[in-house]
Amino acid sequence: MRSACISVKLGIRERLSPSCGSNMLSCWLSRLCRGFSTPTGRITHLSRGSLSRTLVLSSQRRIPEFSSFVARTNTCGELRSSHLGQEVTLCGWIQYRRQNIFLVLRDFHGLVQVVIPQEESAAAVRKILCEAPVESVVRVSGTVISRPPGQENPKTEALRLQYRYLDLRSFQMQYNLRLRSQMVMKMREYLCNLHGFVDIETPTLFKRTPGGAKEFVIPSREPGKFYCLPQSPQQFKQLLMVGGLDRYFQVARCYRDEGSRPDRQPEFTQIDIEMSFVDQTGIQRLIEGLLQYSWPSDKDPVVVPFPSLTFAEALASYGTDKPDTRFGMKIIDISDVLRNTEVGFLQDALSKPQGTVKAICISEGTKYLKRKDLESIRKFAADHFNQEVLPVFPKASRNWNSPVAQSILEEQRSGLIRLMEIREDDVVLLTAGEHKKACSVLGKLRLECADLLEARGLVLRDPTLFSFLWVVDFPLFLPKEENPGELESAHHPFTAPHPSDIQLLYTEPEKVRSQHYDLVLNGSEIGGGSIRIHDAELQRYILATLLKEDVKLLSHLLQALDFGAPPHGGIALGLDRLICLVTGAPSIRDVIAFPKSFKGHDLMSNAPDSLPPEELKPYHIQVSWPANSEAEKSSLNQPYCPES
Amino acid sequence: MRSACISVKLGIRERLSPSCGSNMLSCWLSRLCRGFSTPTGRITHLSRGSLSRTLVLSSQRRIPEFSSFVARTNTCGELRSSHLGQEVTLCGWIQYRRQNIFLVLRDFHGLVQVVIPQEESAAAVRKILCEAPVESVVRVSGTVISRPPGQENPKTEALRLQYRYLDLRSFQMQYNLRLRSQMVMKMREYLCNLHGFVDIETPTLFKRTPGGAKEFVIPSREPGKFYCLPQSPQQFKQLLMVGGLDRYFQVARCYRDEGSRPDRQPEFTQIDIEMSFVDQTGIQRLIEGLLQYSWPSDKDPVVVPFPSLTFAEALASYGTDKPDTRFGMKIIDISDVLRNTEVGFLQDALSKPQGTVKAICISEGTKYLKRKDLESIRKFAADHFNQEVLPVFPKASRNWNSPVAQSILEEQRSGLIRLMEIREDDVVLLTAGEHKKACSVLGKLRLECADLLEARGLVLRDPTLFSFLWVVDFPLFLPKEENPGELESAHHPFTAPHPSDIQLLYTEPEKVRSQHYDLVLNGSEIGGGSIRIHDAELQRYILATLLKEDVKLLSHLLQALDFGAPPHGGIALGLDRLICLVTGAPSIRDVIAFPKSFKGHDLMSNAPDSLPPEELKPYHIQVSWPANSEAEKSSLNQPYCPES
Repeated sequence: MRSACISVKLGIRERLSPSCGSNMLSCWLSRLCRGFSTPTGRITHLSRGSLSRTLVLSSQRRIPEFSSFVARTNTCGELRSSHLGQEVTLCGWIQYRRQNIFLVLRDFHGLVQVVIPQEESAAAVRKILCEAPVESVVRVSGTVISRPPGQENPKTEALRLQYRYLDLRSFQMQYNLRLRSQMVMKMREYLCNLHGFVDIETPTLFKRTPGGAKEFVIPSREPGKFYCLPQSPQQFKQLLMVGGLDRYFQVARCYRDEGSRPDRQPEFTQIDIEMSFVDQTGIQRLIEGLLQYSWPSDKDPVVVPFPSLTFAEALASYGTDKPDTRFGMKIIDISDVLRNTEVGFLQDALSKPQGTVKAICISEGTKYLKRKDLESIRKFAADHFNQEVLPVFPKASRNWNSPVAQSILEEQRSGLIRLMEIREDDVVLLTAGEHKKACSVLGKLRLECADLLEARGLVLRDPTLFSFLWVVDFPLFLPKEENPGELESAHHPFTAPHPSDIQLLYTEPEKVRSQHYDLVLNGSEIGGGSIRIHDAELQRYILATLLKEDVKLLSHLLQALDFGAPPHGGIALGLDRLICLVTGAPSIRDVIAFPKSFKGHDLMSNAPDSLPPEELKPYHIQVSWPANSEAEKSSLNQPYCPES
Repeated sequence: MRSACISVKLGIRERLSPSCGSNMLSCWLSRLCRGFSTPTGRITHLSRGSLSRTLVLSSQRRIPEFSSFVARTNTCGELRSSHLGQEVTLCGWIQYRRQNIFLVLRDFHGLVQVVIPQEESAAAVRKILCEAPVESVVRVSGTVISRPPGQENPKTEALRLQYRYLDLRSFQMQYNLRLRSQMVMKMREYLCNLHGFVDIETPTLFKRTPGGAKEFVIPSREPGKFYCLPQSPQQFKQLLMVGGLDRYFQVARCYRDEGSRPDRQPEFTQIDIEMSFVDQTGIQRLIEGLLQYSWPSDKDPVVVPFPSLTFAEALASYGTDKPDTRFGMKIIDISDVLRNTEVGFLQDALSKPQGTVKAICISEGTKYLKRKDLESIRKFAADHFNQEVLPVFPKASRNWNSPVAQSILEEQRSGLIRLMEIREDDVVLLTAGEHKKACSVLGKLRLECADLLEARGLVLRDPTLFSFLWVVDFPLFLPKEENPGELESAHHPFTAPHPSDIQLLYTEPEKVRSQHYDLVLNGSEIGGGSIRIHDAELQRYILATLLKEDVKLLSHLLQALDFGAPPHGGIALGLDRLICLVTGAPSIRDVIAFPKSFKGHDLMSNAPDSLPPEELKPYHIQVSWPANSEAEKSSLNQPYCPES
C-alpha cells in the first residue's frame, strides 16, 4: 500500500495543453482539486492506486511488459515497495494537485503521487507544475521513495467508502459497474426474450421463516408485530410455480444479518430462477447457456457443458465441495502403497477400520518451495487441524535430511511415483486419518501451496481462466452440530431427495442424497439450487417427522402444494460474487455502487443512525440500552466518527 | 359481484373428451378439484370471474358482440345481475367441479358457476356432468339466477390474497404479470441498449432522510442505531451523477409506511432515472421515447411528443395538477359575462378583489342527468367544499324550474352560450369564489359528472385511449400547512428553481417556479421528476435559509456537490400504477404478484407476525405494549384470522 514519491523533470513535447479541449471538464476538475485540498480527500488517490492494482496484476500475466519501446520505465499503477530507491520515468495526465506540494499523475494503470520540488534550484519546474491545468500530459523522472511519514493512511478503504462518489469516478469502479449492468442485461435477454421467463417482483416485507435467525426485523404499526426481510424469495418462487407462472426469474434483493463478516454485505443480489416441469439437467443446461450468453466479450468465451463432480468425488479429490479446478494437485489415496509403512502416524492411521493415507503432489515443489515453506505448511496443519503432514521427495536429487521421510521404503517410493505420476523436483505431502478429515486437510494445503508457489513466481491459476464446475448429489440431511443425533437440512427443507434414495427416507434418512446442485467458479460457490419437493405429504413428512419443525409456520406453503403443484426446481446465482470474479475485483465491495463496511455501516451517510424515541413510538418499540451504554446514549447525534 | 347459476343441457358434439390429451394436466387438475372441495377454496372462481370482468368491460367497447354467428348467447365472463332471469346458452371448458353440486365453466372472458341439476328427471345429465373430466368442452343452457343465499362471500378480495397462488392461475393475473415483465424488459432495452444507461442497484438499508416520517425503521445490532428503508433512491442517484456514472436507471424497490391507505402498498416499484448534462426537455423526450418503445403491441401506439400544460394552466382548465384529458368539459372563467348578475352568491364573489365565477359545460346533460343527479352534485360541493354550485340550462327547451337559474339574464345567457359554445341539451354548472378554490371544486365536479354520465351509458373516457400529459412549472415552495408563514418544498429540496426565477429566491421565494415536471396519464400521476440543484451553495441556501432544515443530516450530499457535480436531472415512473392503467386493472394489487392488503398485511403468510422477545434481543429493542393490549399479548401465535 505504498505510493511512490518522485522528483520531477518536465518533458517538452507535452507542454501544458489540456489533452481534452473541454472547458467544462477542466472546470469540474479544478473544483475537484479544491475539494481534495481538505484533509479528508487526502488519500483518495491512494485508494485508486490500489484499485488499479487489480488491473495491473491480471494484465501483467497476459502482457507483462507495458513499458517496452517507449520513454517510460514503469506505469503509474505499477509502483510497489519493491521499487523503492529505483530511478523511474513515468508518463501520464495530471489528475489533480494538492496545495502545490504534490500532484497526482494518472495513466491507464493507476495513479501515483509526485512530489513537486520545493527547493530554489527547481523554481522553474515548480512554477510550470503548479500552473499546469489538470489533464495536462507530462513526463516525470525521479527516485521512488516511501510515502512521507504521516501521510500513510491505514483507513484507506473506510475513506473510499466515505467518499464513495469520488471513488466511483475511478476507471475500475466505472468498469465494474458498467460490466455488471451489461452482464445482467444480457442475462435478462436470455431469460425473457429467448426462453420465455417472466420477471416477477416478490415482496421483501415478509414474515420470519423457520430458523430465520439472520433476518432483519421491521416493526409494524401494530404492537408486537414485525415484518422480516427475507434471505431469498424461496417460498415466493415456489408459490409462483403453484400459481402456474411456469418460468420465473428475478434479480432479487436479499438480506442477511450476519453481524460483522468480511466480504459479506447485509443486502445482496441474486439471479433467482424457478421453472416448472424441469429436472436437474434442465436447470444446468439453462444456466450454462445463461452464462455463455451473458459472458463479457472481452473475456475468453465460456465452454459448455460444465464438468460435474459428485459431492463425494469433490471431497475425495479436492477436499472441499467447491474445488478450484484451474489447477491439478488432486488428492490421491495412497493407503495401498503404504500398507506396510514403518512411519508411526501412518501406521496408526492404517490400523484403524476407516483409516487412510492421502497425498498431494506439488509439481516442481523442490524448485519453488523453501524448507521454511514446508515447515509452515506442517505447522498450519498441526495448528488448524491437529493433523500431522509429511513432505517427501520421491525423485529429488537433493537430500532434504528429513529422518521421517527417509523411513519411506524404496518399494513404497516407486509405488508412489507410479501411482501419483511423480516427476523430478516434485514434492509430495502425505497425511493420514479418517477419509473426510484427511481430504479436508489436504484440500486446504492444496490452496496454501498454490498461494506459496504463486508468491514464488509460478502461475498456477491463470487469471484469464474461468473454470466452472457443477457439484451434485449432496447429502439431503446433516447431523445437527449441537446434537448429532438429530438431522437438519443440508441446504433447505424444500429440497427434493434423489429419486434413487426415496425409500431410504423411511429407513436411513442420513444416507439420502438430494437433488441439490452447486455451481462453482474458480473455487468459489457462485450458485446453488435444487429440484423441490412438490408433494405435500412428502414435504410434511420431512418437515414434521425428520426435521421436527413447526409446520404451522409453513402452512401456507403446504396448503399450496395440496392445491396441485407442478414438479419444479430452480437456482440462485450470487450476482455480487460472480461479478467480483469476472472483473477480478479484490472484494465484492468493488462491484457494488454503495456497499456497507464489514461492520454493516454506510460510511458515507452514517447509517445505521440514532433515532429520537418519538420516531419509534408509532412502531411500539423502545431501545433496551445495555447496562454499560450510558456513554453511548449521551453521544447521540455527536459528530460522525469513521470506523477504524 | 353476482355469479350466475344456470340449469344445464349438454351438447353432443363436445362430449366428454378432455380438450388437451395430457394425462399430467388432468392429473393436476383433478388434484386441484380436490383442493377446492375444502371450504376455503369456495369463492376463488368468483374472484376470477370478477377479475375477468375488466377484460370484458374494456373489450365490450371495442368489439361489442362476442356472441354473433355462434351457438352461445353470452360469454361466461359477461353475466351480471342485469342478466338475472334471462335464458342463456354458454360454451366453454369445465374448469372444476365442487361436490357434484356445482361446476365452474370457463371461456376466454371469465368463469361462471353452473348448478348441476339434482332432481331424478335429470339423472342422465347429472351423471355425465359429474363424470366428465375437467377441461371437457360443454354447451349449457339455462336461466340466470342469483348466487344461492349463503354462498355470497363478502371477503372475496381477502380470500384472493390469502390463496394468492390460486388467484395467480387466472387468465387476468397471468396477463397482467406477463405484460408487466415484457413492458419492463422493453424499457430496459430502450435505456440500456439504445441509450447507454447503466442499471445500478442502490441500497435499501439507509439512514433516515430529513422529514422521512414515513420510512420503516430497522433496528441494527448496535444499541439505539437504526437503518431506514428509503422512499426512493433520490440521494443515491444524485451521488451517482457526482460519481460520473452519467446515465443511471434502476427498477427500484421503494418503501413508504403510510399505515392503512386504499390502493397503496408499503413496498412499491419505480422506474428510477437520472442523467447528467440534461435539461427538462431532454428528460421529457427520453420518457416519451421510453413509453413509445415499451408500449404493448396489442394497444394503440403512443403518440409523441406528449402535450404539456403549466401547473397554472392545468389548475385553471381542469382544477387539478393531474387532469384527465381524455374528455373536455374544461373550466371556463365567466366572470366577465356575469359581472352584472343578480344572483346573490355570484354577486358576493365578484365584489371581492380575487373573486371569480367559473363554469363547466356538461354536453347533453339534460338528456343524461336527472334532477336528483344535479341535487347530489350540489350537495357534494356543499358538503366537501362548503361551496355553492348552480346548474343552468342556457338552451334547454325543458324548464327545470330552478328559481335561481331563472335569474340569469337573457344577455348573460347568450354571452354564456357564445363563450362556452353551449349546444342544445347542455347543462352548465356555475360556481364562484377565489380562483384556486373555484377551480378545485369544478375539477372535482367534472370527474363526478363524468362518472354519472358513464353510469347512464354515455362513454366519455374511451377505455382504449391513453392520454398522456406533462404538467410543468410547479411552484418550488408551498406555505407550510401548519404554519403558512414558513415554506416547505413542493416536491423535494433538491429541485432546481426555474432559471427565469432565480433572483426571486432572494426576494420573493414563494413566487419561484421549479424545474419539476409531472407525467399524467388519464388523470393519474404516473411519474415526476426535476432538474436538480448541482451548486452546493445554492443547495445550502435553500436547505438552511429558506427551508430551515438541519443540513447536518445531508452533509454527505452537500459535500458531494462541493466536489464537482455535473448539471443533472431525472424522473421516477410509478411502475405499479402505470401497469395498472395499461392493463385496465381495478387496483394496483392486480398487477403485483403478492400484494399486501390495504392494512399492509400479507394475508397468505400472515405477515407482519409476532416474534418472541428473545428474537428481538440482538437488536436491543423491546415492544412497548399499549395499556389496553394485554388481550392482544395473550393471543400471540393464535390461529390465523383474516382481516375483514
